[in-house]
Amino acid sequence: MDLFKSKIREMPDFPREGINFKDVSTLLLDGDAYRQAIQELATQCRHKQADLIVCPKQRGLIIGAPLAYILGTGLVTLCLQGNEPEEDLTRHYDLEFGGRSIELNRDLIQPGMKVLVVDELIATGGTTVATVKVIEELGAEVVGTVFLIELTGLGGRVKLQDYDTISLVQYNY
Amino acid sequence: MDLFKSKIREMPDFPREGINFKDVSTLLLDGDAYRQAIQELATQCRHKQADLIVCPKQRGLIIGAPLAYILGTGLVTLCLQGNEPEEDLTRHYDLEFGGRSIELNRDLIQPGMKVLVVDELIATGGTTVATVKVIEELGAEVVGTVFLIELTGLGGRVKLQDYDTISLVQYNY
Repeated sequence: MDLFKSKIREMPDFPREGINFKDVSTLLLDGDAYRQAIQELATQCRHKQADLIVCPKQRGLIIGAPLAYILGTGLVTLCLQGNEPEEDLTRHYDLEFGGRSIELNRDLIQPGMKVLVVDELIATGGTTVATVKVIEELGAEVVGTVFLIELTGLGGRVKLQDYDTISLVQYNY
Repeated sequence: MDLFKSKIREMPDFPREGINFKDVSTLLLDGDAYRQAIQELATQCRHKQADLIVCPKQRGLIIGAPLAYILGTGLVTLCLQGNEPEEDLTRHYDLEFGGRSIELNRDLIQPGMKVLVVDELIATGGTTVATVKVIEELGAEVVGTVFLIELTGLGGRVKLQDYDTISLVQYNY
């Protein structure tokens, strides 16, 4: 996937020393490369026959929304606390870091649904694991996790070893 | 567009008395309806021959990302202040309300580009007008503005009268 890697801008020592930030905005700017990236991910997860795509973060919509369009699935985004209506329909789940929690309208995910969890990037996998847990507690099945970028060596794929994990571009960390 | 309207959940008196909140999540949950909504919007703006779709908010990606995929354009999202790398490449634009400002990496929008501004909803049009202004100051051309939902009677379309404004579902306010 060198084509895609060449389109992603690396920003050394951002946001702090020692971190090599991956800036996807340069890939998205190239309509052909963006389209190919989406098509490649769609090809890799079409056989999962998912009913629903869940994006843990709105940023994940850059991949999740067109994938839902191509695969013909529904689309759900989770919200950081405080941004979602209907408090009484909401569950709160703590993430491992930063004291953030996930909110989700309970009635959007139904038992028996086959769900793909889709995000822009996987690093330690904390957000994805919390999202998978929510989906399974609601009785739905996670049939795979899909990422544009995977930072390998940070343990994300290991945490998700019970699930099929698909990523388009990998960086060693 | 009664099909689409029937899929959008109305929540009276949310987030405060007198506001009838439009919950798009029920439309997104229905894969067929979501897909048809995107296709209808794509049909309406294909002749604009845009090079780029700009989403003022990440939430706008529910429409903007699949539109970019279908139309073969690039995709840019603006960020609320503080979320974007490279401060020195960033311009700040104040919105009319709430003291928020828009950030944008200057190098993403090039002079001469034909741009569609895409968001989930238009009400007073403040965010869209600020976004249009940024794009034009960078020398690009706004060839249209596209929304899933339009709240008519709040002045948004009037503020944008110099631009072609497309919306899929309208509610009188």
